[in-house]
Amino acid sequence: MDVFEAIQKRFSVRRYLDRPVEEEKLNKVLEAARLAPSGNNRQPWVFIVVRDAATRKQLAEAAMGQSFVAEAPVVIAACGTDPERMMSCEVPDYAVNVAIAITNMTLQAVEEGLGTCWIGAFDQQKVKDILGIPASVKVVELLPLGYPAVEPPATKNRKPLDEIVMYERWQG
Amino acid sequence: MDVFEAIQKRFSVRRYLDRPVEEEKLNKVLEAARLAPSGNNRQPWVFIVVRDAATRKQLAEAAMGQSFVAEAPVVIAACGTDPERMMSCEVPDYAVNVAIAITNMTLQAVEEGLGTCWIGAFDQQKVKDILGIPASVKVVELLPLGYPAVEPPATKNRKPLDEIVMYERWQG
Repeated sequence: MDVFEAIQKRFSVRRYLDRPVEEEKLNKVLEAARLAPSGNNRQPWVFIVVRDAATRKQLAEAAMGQSFVAEAPVVIAACGTDPERMMSCEVPDYAVNVAIAITNMTLQAVEEGLGTCWIGAFDQQKVKDILGIPASVKVVELLPLGYPAVEPPATKNRKPLDEIVMYERWQG
Repeated sequence: MDVFEAIQKRFSVRRYLDRPVEEEKLNKVLEAARLAPSGNNRQPWVFIVVRDAATRKQLAEAAMGQSFVAEAPVVIAACGTDPERMMSCEVPDYAVNVAIAITNMTLQAVEEGLGTCWIGAFDQQKVKDILGIPASVKVVELLPLGYPAVEPPATKNRKPLDEIVMYERWQG
């Protein structure tokens, strides 16, 4: 599947089949994260792969009760290991770098026939407590991963290009 | 080109050919950004496409003098339009969302035979002044885009999976 097709096909999967994710596919998704670029190649990330059903249920509860999070056979907690570091442009380094790795995973998942959903609505401290994550680390997203039990939407609802692209300088 | 191949082939391109980027390819790269997901589908981003040579030179100077930034025929300033907003997990929404869109662009660029480089080393205020960007907006990255004048490295230098992946909970 080419890149553009994967970008078009990715959607937020909020229902999953009760079907395990093959080890090989999971590893390919993780490998996509591993190969992501990061500032000065510091790779300031850790990915916690949760398959235990009871833990997934706890994570779903910490994610404002979004129960489909526990429906997925795998939930990946994507963590930034250096959350205090700022880039010189004054943007937090960990948020950008971990988001790159997660994006790679979401697109690789599409290629593997799998679905994901970016979950940023969760209680940071509760997720840390559930997974035993140190205070010095920050969880950027929870990413359920599994076979979708829903069809993709027919179209993507997005602003047109001329609302989000400006030429040469800020307009208006 | 499949997703995994694009992820493998992407590298930080720091030398560009003196060759324009075709309008069609540029638009495909921007379309890849447009289709990116974002929290509640707010699409909190603007992409400023700079082709003017004098402006590119100013941007390169603002990017700690990294002159290759001006060598690329196109420089995209990827901006977050709601930089104060936090996700409920206490991670800045704009940094994650704009990074997703940029990642899409970098992978689509590979598919188009183009190169990019994530530039987070720049002076935020200088870039804003050069491009007339309002104070309420934050530039997340500068992204030079053009035909690479260098070959990709033979291998990617990355930590092995077992250093960045943990199972079930934080280890060690």
